[in-house]
Amino acid sequence: MGADNTAVNKVRKRTDGRLARGNQTRQLILRHAVDVASVRGLEGLSLGQLADELELSKSGVFSLFGSKEELQRATVRTAVTIFLGQVVIPARRFPDGVAKIRHLCEKWLDYSRTRVFPGGCFFYSVSAEFDARLGPVRDEVAAAQANWRTFIERTIEEARAAGQIRAETSTGQLAFELIAFMETANGESLLSGDDSAYGHASAAILNRLRAAATDPRLLPDAP
Amino acid sequence: MGADNTAVNKVRKRTDGRLARGNQTRQLILRHAVDVASVRGLEGLSLGQLADELELSKSGVFSLFGSKEELQRATVRTAVTIFLGQVVIPARRFPDGVAKIRHLCEKWLDYSRTRVFPGGCFFYSVSAEFDARLGPVRDEVAAAQANWRTFIERTIEEARAAGQIRAETSTGQLAFELIAFMETANGESLLSGDDSAYGHASAAILNRLRAAATDPRLLPDAP
Repeated sequence: MGADNTAVNKVRKRTDGRLARGNQTRQLILRHAVDVASVRGLEGLSLGQLADELELSKSGVFSLFGSKEELQRATVRTAVTIFLGQVVIPARRFPDGVAKIRHLCEKWLDYSRTRVFPGGCFFYSVSAEFDARLGPVRDEVAAAQANWRTFIERTIEEARAAGQIRAETSTGQLAFELIAFMETANGESLLSGDDSAYGHASAAILNRLRAAATDPRLLPDAP
Repeated sequence: MGADNTAVNKVRKRTDGRLARGNQTRQLILRHAVDVASVRGLEGLSLGQLADELELSKSGVFSLFGSKEELQRATVRTAVTIFLGQVVIPARRFPDGVAKIRHLCEKWLDYSRTRVFPGGCFFYSVSAEFDARLGPVRDEVAAAQANWRTFIERTIEEARAAGQIRAETSTGQLAFELIAFMETANGESLLSGDDSAYGHASAAILNRLRAAATDPRLLPDAP
């Protein structure tokens, strides 16, 4: 039994080691795939090219992803994880209210402006690429966008429950307008090559939130 | 001389006929290319595939466009012409003022909602595709977007000159917000498959223009 256990453990360790290395390589590939897709789109991803760019063996890369579609879906999920860490999690430390909504929007503008992904907001790029198509990749992209919108709407509802949003404000309408300011700043800054659209977006968000707030003094000039 | 002239005229007529046919074929290809690019992107254009889909000879199609880049640039210019006819020219019949700005925005929302291009707004699709790249195609796309923004800003300035825009309103800020509402409605409707975002955009545009107007009664509920 003792000897058997040792043999089993050896095999298990070897397997665990291989799985861990496989998982690390997968993460490395996906982090690069997210950057590439933010510039060239999800259709611009190729397992062969990713292997070349990362100096990995092609067969090794192919063994980690069954198909281009699997790679594309895993890339979207990786982008979601990075986005949560950059935008959603930092906002958690704020108490419910209009200032929290504003911080969430400002975190999003930082995420776009600092080019966490070289092609700007990952979801903006791939949404425009896949919005007029059908299939599981599009569904993954649409779900990520829907989750983000739901999160903003919930943050608005929490601010309302905290007594900081005026009764006549429509949550869906306010969420639509805030998202419009954020996404348009991202798109314009990429196309124009300058940052002025972020200033327009910040001003528009502050103005809109003040109009929706029960007390505009909850939103001072500096965020 | 008479015989010579007849011969020259015959050649000229034959050449004119060929040019006219070439021009018609070119227009036919470009109109289809615009539809294709609105769904699959400008990188998704292929001279061979366009020839197949239109049942034209490949060599004929290749002879009309020197390169894929030339096809892409001509496709952008064709989309501009169609856009002008759908959105910009119909707004000309309105007198300068805030109602004209609103009509321009509503025409844009109609252009997106009725899917003049099957993939929604052509410029929204190809901007997201090319915003993080460099080269003449990107420049053509960026110029089209800049011209549209300049046109909106001029329409706002004309409304100001007509005494209908409040003095403290920033033209650049107002144009940014109106464009944000229009483009986001286009993107969301494509991704969600429903039309509710257009209602949000119309309401946001009306609300924003009323806040900027010297007299909100210039903007009744019905456009």
